[in-house]
Amino acid sequence: MHTTVAVIGGGPAGLLLSRLLHRAGVDCVLLERRSRAYVEQRQRAGILEQSTVDALREADAAERLDREGLVHEGIELRWNGRAHRIDLPSLTDGRRVRVYAQTEVVKDLVALQLADGAAPHFEAEVRGIEGADGTRPSVHYTHQGQEKTLTCDYVVGCDGYHGVARTAVPRSAQRTFERVYPYSWLGVTADVPPSCDELVYAHSPHGFALHSMRSREVSRLYLQVPNGTDPADWPDDRVWDELDTRFALDGWKLARGPITAKSVLPMRSSVTEPLRHGRLFLAGDAAHIVPPTGAKGLNLAASDVTVLARALIRRLRTGNTDLLDAYSDTCLRRVWRAEHFSSFMTTALHTDPDQGEFGTRLQISQLDRIADSPHASTELALNYAGLSIP
Amino acid sequence: MHTTVAVIGGGPAGLLLSRLLHRAGVDCVLLERRSRAYVEQRQRAGILEQSTVDALREADAAERLDREGLVHEGIELRWNGRAHRIDLPSLTDGRRVRVYAQTEVVKDLVALQLADGAAPHFEAEVRGIEGADGTRPSVHYTHQGQEKTLTCDYVVGCDGYHGVARTAVPRSAQRTFERVYPYSWLGVTADVPPSCDELVYAHSPHGFALHSMRSREVSRLYLQVPNGTDPADWPDDRVWDELDTRFALDGWKLARGPITAKSVLPMRSSVTEPLRHGRLFLAGDAAHIVPPTGAKGLNLAASDVTVLARALIRRLRTGNTDLLDAYSDTCLRRVWRAEHFSSFMTTALHTDPDQGEFGTRLQISQLDRIADSPHASTELALNYAGLSIP
Repeated sequence: MHTTVAVIGGGPAGLLLSRLLHRAGVDCVLLERRSRAYVEQRQRAGILEQSTVDALREADAAERLDREGLVHEGIELRWNGRAHRIDLPSLTDGRRVRVYAQTEVVKDLVALQLADGAAPHFEAEVRGIEGADGTRPSVHYTHQGQEKTLTCDYVVGCDGYHGVARTAVPRSAQRTFERVYPYSWLGVTADVPPSCDELVYAHSPHGFALHSMRSREVSRLYLQVPNGTDPADWPDDRVWDELDTRFALDGWKLARGPITAKSVLPMRSSVTEPLRHGRLFLAGDAAHIVPPTGAKGLNLAASDVTVLARALIRRLRTGNTDLLDAYSDTCLRRVWRAEHFSSFMTTALHTDPDQGEFGTRLQISQLDRIADSPHASTELALNYAGLSIP
Repeated sequence: MHTTVAVIGGGPAGLLLSRLLHRAGVDCVLLERRSRAYVEQRQRAGILEQSTVDALREADAAERLDREGLVHEGIELRWNGRAHRIDLPSLTDGRRVRVYAQTEVVKDLVALQLADGAAPHFEAEVRGIEGADGTRPSVHYTHQGQEKTLTCDYVVGCDGYHGVARTAVPRSAQRTFERVYPYSWLGVTADVPPSCDELVYAHSPHGFALHSMRSREVSRLYLQVPNGTDPADWPDDRVWDELDTRFALDGWKLARGPITAKSVLPMRSSVTEPLRHGRLFLAGDAAHIVPPTGAKGLNLAASDVTVLARALIRRLRTGNTDLLDAYSDTCLRRVWRAEHFSSFMTTALHTDPDQGEFGTRLQISQLDRIADSPHASTELALNYAGLSIP
């Protein structure tokens, strides 16, 4: 089998890329090792930047998002007994974010591609990529127990940090920059309406906490915990009591409800450079990981594939490789901005024993400054609402 | 001997405080353990914020500063082959800084107090402070081999981090927050006109470097070096070669000249809280230390004593203790802002092996952002030019 663009991985990056290419008339095959059912319930981020919403609209994949996504015009910061709301539209010339779970983005894109006769190949597990240095790469995969090969003009790895694509690049041809944080998140999903309409990022001497939501009926809450924490050590009452402690603010009460899911998420930053090796391109988590604090992972993935789709379409329509040649540099500058912001939000809000009490006082001074300086709060708002896709 | 306010330490903090009190008619004695000659050549910072200049003018001690001080309207940042100038007045509504060495501030204040018959007591070494909890503290000191006692209504410690005042407060009544950085500065003074009119803060893979000046004829240059560095390991040629490497920029050349002084400065952050214990007050380095990167040490000292002089004068004129009671809180908020900014400038510009290559990339992204975002550069300019004295 041959295709113009082979896309590996059926998360939001791979699905949006194949959607954009398909709509431009580019022949494209998407290989995803998991089943459709699995992919459609893989819980991840749920904050969509303005640019991501625009990209999904461009792909004609935003109908349900526009109907059901919760528009958020601000976030709240809490620390040291203070609370401060960052108003996004007034600080960013009208930019907003939307809460719409990644699972829903995935469902929408899968359904649209199916309806167009461009269905992803589910349960197709890529084993290796060959010939990325040449003119006709081949992708080897297994499907229903059979070994198969897909040849292509270009191959794009959207298969995450542990995927085949990133490791298919020779070590000597790429560099990976990494940081592992000395804490994790305990995330819980609860069948209770959110206690307020917006996200609350709380700094407390007991650690970071985040109030978030999946929908108007379902809350999603996070607690900073030590690395290696076993969720079994956190019975529901302990979770709620700790959330109460960390969100404590006069006149505010966290509503409790049945906890339906509980898991521990590690926190890591990672960037692999460059994003291209011959005819193999990396996008999304295959190229970079951010800690979830800045809500940038899904948005970077959407930005990468928007830039890449434009570059591939230009190459295939006009023969001009300029955008394709610039792809890695174009994306990396935005990637590093998001890496810096995610790291900033993470280190600004989490307690870190290595930083001591002096570090905690610096955090409080920084949060005070964000509240008191229009320039500091605008800088946070611009980065949070998201920069334009280059 | 009795006085209303005993001031310990004849650096800029103590001298400016005694000047402000003397001009308001408050009886005041300043005890300094070193000689006048020693104090007048003790090399330290040389960047005066707008607020510090205003405070010195208020004390009628700015005549020579206004004549000889070099007005600086910007600083330059250099990193990764880029250079960006931060224009202070346009970003801060007209605030500027002045380059005027601390030794000159000290000389001016000593001369003025001498002329007014309010000379500091030099070579008066304080041995202990008693009764700060009561209504009449006493200060024990030695002068020309004799033990002496000065009783007072209030005592102010302007005698630095290692001074008597800070340690006179019981451990249980104060907290010290500290950070030691994993690098130092090698500072050199050279008889050569500065290579450009403004300060240059350079981030490089080889470490931080700073181009500064004492006057139009004398350059002052700094290199990041490992802790424990012996200046003897840095012959002049090595210093100049390393400066060339770190400042490298197309079309820029560092002028060389005879090096007249060479020393290693450690980098530390420290805050002791509160700034008051009974009738004992701490100001300047006795209460807080900043790494030199943000040029805040002298300016914080001036801010502390301006607030304290106002509070003492109010107490003595009206009996009202409100400003005196608020002194510690009033100053600490500004102190922590300066501590955060100094730590930010330090960690933004120095290479740190513990942060790895990932950390270096974050630094570059942050510096790019400062250059590209008016909000980020304004935030830096406001903090650098200095906030108003509260």
